[in-house]
Amino acid sequence: MARDEYAIGLDLGGTKILAGLVHSSGKMLGQTLLPTASQEGAEAVIDRVLAAIEGVLATAQVERRSVRGVGIASAGVIDSAAAEVIFAGNLGWRNVPIGRLIADRFGLPVRLMNDANAAAVAEWMWGAGKGTQNMIYVTVSTGVGAGIISGGQLVQGAEGGAGEFGHISIDWNGPLCGCGNRGCLELYASGTAIEKLARKQVEAGELVLAGAGGALTTGEALTAKAIGEAALAGDRACIEIVERAGFYLGVGTTSLIHLFNPEVIVFGGGVMNASSILLAEAEKSVRERCIPSMANQVKFALQQVGVEAGAVGAAGSFFSWDGQEANLPIFSRKLYCKD
Amino acid sequence: MARDEYAIGLDLGGTKILAGLVHSSGKMLGQTLLPTASQEGAEAVIDRVLAAIEGVLATAQVERRSVRGVGIASAGVIDSAAAEVIFAGNLGWRNVPIGRLIADRFGLPVRLMNDANAAAVAEWMWGAGKGTQNMIYVTVSTGVGAGIISGGQLVQGAEGGAGEFGHISIDWNGPLCGCGNRGCLELYASGTAIEKLARKQVEAGELVLAGAGGALTTGEALTAKAIGEAALAGDRACIEIVERAGFYLGVGTTSLIHLFNPEVIVFGGGVMNASSILLAEAEKSVRERCIPSMANQVKFALQQVGVEAGAVGAAGSFFSWDGQEANLPIFSRKLYCKD
Repeated sequence: MARDEYAIGLDLGGTKILAGLVHSSGKMLGQTLLPTASQEGAEAVIDRVLAAIEGVLATAQVERRSVRGVGIASAGVIDSAAAEVIFAGNLGWRNVPIGRLIADRFGLPVRLMNDANAAAVAEWMWGAGKGTQNMIYVTVSTGVGAGIISGGQLVQGAEGGAGEFGHISIDWNGPLCGCGNRGCLELYASGTAIEKLARKQVEAGELVLAGAGGALTTGEALTAKAIGEAALAGDRACIEIVERAGFYLGVGTTSLIHLFNPEVIVFGGGVMNASSILLAEAEKSVRERCIPSMANQVKFALQQVGVEAGAVGAAGSFFSWDGQEANLPIFSRKLYCKD
Repeated sequence: MARDEYAIGLDLGGTKILAGLVHSSGKMLGQTLLPTASQEGAEAVIDRVLAAIEGVLATAQVERRSVRGVGIASAGVIDSAAAEVIFAGNLGWRNVPIGRLIADRFGLPVRLMNDANAAAVAEWMWGAGKGTQNMIYVTVSTGVGAGIISGGQLVQGAEGGAGEFGHISIDWNGPLCGCGNRGCLELYASGTAIEKLARKQVEAGELVLAGAGGALTTGEALTAKAIGEAALAGDRACIEIVERAGFYLGVGTTSLIHLFNPEVIVFGGGVMNASSILLAEAEKSVRERCIPSMANQVKFALQQVGVEAGAVGAAGSFFSWDGQEANLPIFSRKLYCKD
């Protein structure tokens, strides 16, 4: 990076809003953290989003005109060109024009990205995918998602909806998914899937969680993260559950490799980070199933950028990549006024 | 296209070699057609490839120095950077450095592309995908393949191996595929799959091919193309077989849409062209399964560039796209001499 550049990055999550001023080195210089509290309604959440950006601008030690824009990472289905959240289940949002609202308030260009895409950009610019031209970031948390860099470009698709890795079908005759498809990967390899399977086994009396001293057997504590940690601690039943999820993740990842021929796949997300067993099993099933010439040259890595990856990556979309500008739609007040 | 540009395109198929001089308008100006006759061995086939190019250059009505290069479309697994055919089952080839041999002989730069990628470029530049930035070309013939344009770039992957759509798994527990994976789409929705199912039904006495006057029941004539045509003519048993294949094709296509969010999917290939039922059923299963926001804006189309699509598209990779140079590796004698 030739010179100092700055952008604001904001991660709009189901539980918290994280905003910070991001330097072109990928460092976040100060941050504002607010609860999302989506149950209070979209307007209240938007007020907190605006307040978080206000807070970052107020405390920033740089001139306002050196801030290139605001990058927003959001879960759910988004329309990048309109900078609109089309649907976000964790926020209870439908058709919220978050980009326009931010552009109106601050007079800064806005980029709205899917959170997995934003994290992919962060890993690609400053993390485990640095220096590659073909990288896939796979996140395993409540759901499963991906952000894909191909030929040095983020794969966005027509409306920024690309990368819905959790909704590729690994069983055409499998159970119905909320998205309308059947046998979606997310039903087998997500945190939700792990919890569901564990709960079922506990209810059937098949799962005795020795490793966790029995604490996991109560409903509340039976989280995928806890199950992953118990597996890592040696709990046999939990190991089996996580291994099964890892196997399915490998089935889906094999399809990803066949479609994208990537150099590296970077794995992240809360469930992935809780247990190394998940990644080991995924890699094992890829090695068993993948076309050898493609399997032999793809590397598996864990994410390097931390929990700030979404915010940092969304801001990163304003910095030049390999001397190129980002190929992502940008929303600015000027564009908006033209309509 | 600002000015006249020319390149040689060559389609290296299992049965024939088609080479021609291609103008930057997408028109093929004269062509040379030779049998592949791969049973004679790789050296004999390479001799015919070189002879075909020689023939095109000899008859070309343009100056040699206005020919920008030679684009080769080949089936199988290829390494674009090395311009090498890694593995092509239909040719019986392993590790054939076709690009180097052509560059050595003619002193022209060479681009080696997967045939589906080449056809995708042709459809994107001059066919059903013209004017879009996000297009997928899906071919259904002996196998199933795809060429993917995302954000105005061909998705190539690390070694030009991207787009192996026939080898995404639609059933993690399905039958073993030759590629090493299980439940590959190609096992359910290709010409080979259609023929296998028909043959099985004929053997079991379940399939009576009334529409084709019984001619199809003999082994030789039981081709996917003939089954597709019989289905179109109203043969009930054949309709069911083709509908089933179309359903599975839709399952796979839904995963493609979720990963790439394309504007248009262009379908081609011999089996696809034999019966409109296949595409109609594929579209139906996509509409049932796909995330609505992505399904609503994707268009389905049939290929517009004819059987020359592979050769034309491979040549087209030498022309500027939207003012940009192609992002594909190029192999030239100069590069080779450096090694």
